[in-house]
Amino acid sequence: MPQHAAADVFAWIDDEERARERAGLVRSLRPRPADSPLLDLASNDYLGLSRHPETVSGAQEAAARWGGGATGSRLVTGTTELHAELERELAAFCGFEAALVLSSGYAANLAAVTALSGHGALVVSDAGNHASIVDGCRLSRAGTAVVPHRDPETARKTLAGHDGRALLVTDSVFSVDGDAAPLAAYAEACRAEGAALVVDDAHGLGVLGEGGRGALHAAGLAGAPGVVATLTLSKSLGSQGGAVLGPAKVIRHLVNTARTFIFDTGLAPAAAGAALAALRLLAREPERADRAREVAAALYGRLTASGLTAARPDAAVVSVRAPSASAALRWAADCREAGLSVGCFRPPSVPDGISRLRLTARADLTGDEITRAVETILATAPAGATDGGRA
Amino acid sequence: MPQHAAADVFAWIDDEERARERAGLVRSLRPRPADSPLLDLASNDYLGLSRHPETVSGAQEAAARWGGGATGSRLVTGTTELHAELERELAAFCGFEAALVLSSGYAANLAAVTALSGHGALVVSDAGNHASIVDGCRLSRAGTAVVPHRDPETARKTLAGHDGRALLVTDSVFSVDGDAAPLAAYAEACRAEGAALVVDDAHGLGVLGEGGRGALHAAGLAGAPGVVATLTLSKSLGSQGGAVLGPAKVIRHLVNTARTFIFDTGLAPAAAGAALAALRLLAREPERADRAREVAAALYGRLTASGLTAARPDAAVVSVRAPSASAALRWAADCREAGLSVGCFRPPSVPDGISRLRLTARADLTGDEITRAVETILATAPAGATDGGRA
Ligand SMILES: Cc1ncc(COP(=O)(O)O)c(C=O)c1O
Ligand SMILES: Cc1ncc(COP(=O)(O)O)c(C=O)c1O
Repeated sequence: MPQHAAADVFAWIDDEERARERAGLVRSLRPRPADSPLLDLASNDYLGLSRHPETVSGAQEAAARWGGGATGSRLVTGTTELHAELERELAAFCGFEAALVLSSGYAANLAAVTALSGHGALVVSDAGNHASIVDGCRLSRAGTAVVPHRDPETARKTLAGHDGRALLVTDSVFSVDGDAAPLAAYAEACRAEGAALVVDDAHGLGVLGEGGRGALHAAGLAGAPGVVATLTLSKSLGSQGGAVLGPAKVIRHLVNTARTFIFDTGLAPAAAGAALAALRLLAREPERADRAREVAAALYGRLTASGLTAARPDAAVVSVRAPSASAALRWAADCREAGLSVGCFRPPSVPDGISRLRLTARADLTGDEITRAVETILATAPAGATDGGRA
Repeated sequence: MPQHAAADVFAWIDDEERARERAGLVRSLRPRPADSPLLDLASNDYLGLSRHPETVSGAQEAAARWGGGATGSRLVTGTTELHAELERELAAFCGFEAALVLSSGYAANLAAVTALSGHGALVVSDAGNHASIVDGCRLSRAGTAVVPHRDPETARKTLAGHDGRALLVTDSVFSVDGDAAPLAAYAEACRAEGAALVVDDAHGLGVLGEGGRGALHAAGLAGAPGVVATLTLSKSLGSQGGAVLGPAKVIRHLVNTARTFIFDTGLAPAAAGAALAALRLLAREPERADRAREVAAALYGRLTASGLTAARPDAAVVSVRAPSASAALRWAADCREAGLSVGCFRPPSVPDGISRLRLTARADLTGDEITRAVETILATAPAGATDGGRA
């Protein structure tokens, strides 16, 4: 459609920006300094390993040995021996036959969902799933059925109604509320209906299962036939990157068909090295996983005892309800003012429209830090937060 | 569909694997050692900066200062002052108002294409575009029109036929053949029809334009209204990551709406630090960009003078035709055997079905290395490669 030469083709962005301002939903970036004095309950660094000296050395040694980048697609020059080593150790730690490392957890979910479905297939997806799974469904050319959150019976019926290739995909721990998927029941539904099960263990690795081996290990499903896990290296392992774990032939299939693997530069060596160092540390110090869950239980117990509404944490995420999006924003800002960094989730990042503070229970928080965090959150709580927290 | 309990839900993968084997199209990973003796003409490390001491120090210092990972989404804890610094310097170097760094070039393309189109919009996409742009179109919920490769007139007509928001998206340098898009004509079509222009300068940054400022800078389009660039930090800058460059309000719009930005962990500090160090090195040593183009011209000139068929390189990619997929594979293997690493592109990675060797002209190749590369490629050339190279 021809327009006047001087017309701004991005004028519609101004309109959207004004609408966001009116709704109080503007997001902006706040660069943090390296020596931030804030107590961090906002990051996904569940085990506190991102700045651990061994993780940092892992990154540095890999950069020295391999350079700043992988220099190409994993299929061309982008597979170093370091990538292969990380893949072997990740698979072994989590109890799977093989693993494939990608440049992010997002890319790993896109790869797994698209490569294991395709035209004519059905993907059954839990309503609480992460955006990267939703995008994987959209990219898949498969039919997608979104089933109610944590509803294995509906998932089973939906699978039963489909003839042909099918898969059920779910987060193990849902990122917003920190609640766990009914993995055993989901797996049973898949077994009964001949479907594959893909589980995104982004928030389970390092926190759930024996020594942090993840939610699938905890459920006795690691390495089971028909079961595939996706992981991120950016949370408990304090780095960047993602992985898909499963039978060796599934991994070979991804190598040959997954677009976000084939057409993407390999993970930077420093990120692979940092993740590998963190993984080895976790294998050596399995109590870190237990500690993260204990910290979450402590935060939950003390906040709800004081009248706040929170979901009982199944892993290391503690989600506290706020009365409204603007109240959540102000609450998080008041916490920051008082020296505490917490996550603030508002629409459209919350599937159910309910705004909340999102706290992460780092394994390396001290008792004093937990007390300080709880006191700060209570002291800054908005009116309405202690009586159910619904807008 | 219920199946026998012991049925393998992934049995279909075996069938596909056998079909790939029969077609000679199996891909597998070949981990490389750090001290590979191969002469590298396969990576996208166009300026040879990935292992440059300054790039490596950039990665190491960033890891020491910020840790192994960004620890969260850019909107939560994942924006460090280092990310902000990299964004400022990238924008300034390339001549744009603002920049946004993402975890990969793939994610940057998904972000730009989806956030700037949407329901009711039209995306006009060059047939040679990279997989990440194609996936961006698929995710966008917009109508997509694929126009013939490098065809601004069809692009203009297609835009003219649409009422409402529209954008034209193209690679600046196409990754398979190394040919350049007709950027000026594409921009003119967009201006005439009131559409935005999104250009993926993955293979232009560091190679084209004054001192490697990129294809848009070379075309006088950097910072023009209605023009957005996407970049990758994983090729000339020797690291990992991607970026979107454009008017500040476009960047704010992406911060608020682009799913692969919002729901993805920030780029690892080491990758940001490596890219920033490489960018500063390039700014200081602009002749590196010229040298990459000279090496490409030398490779092209000598290979075609000997009868091979290659596309005249517009940047640093020299694409040499092979008679068939299997001949390309054997040719690349013979080169490797003789100490030379070259890329081998076969279906489905080639839009036109023509297999080729893909050579990258690194700026740091010496004259002797160029001679060695040319001699090796000629000595291993299959029958049929010197008479047109079509299967
Ligand atoms: C459940 C879940 N899956 C996948 C991802 C994406 O992982 P990454 O940030 O490593 O891309 C995230 C968070 O970022 C997540 O919370
Ligand atoms: C043209 C083009 N765009 C985007 C990408 C993706 O960039 P990245 O590998 O950094 O994700 C690539 C190559 O990988 C590419 O060749």
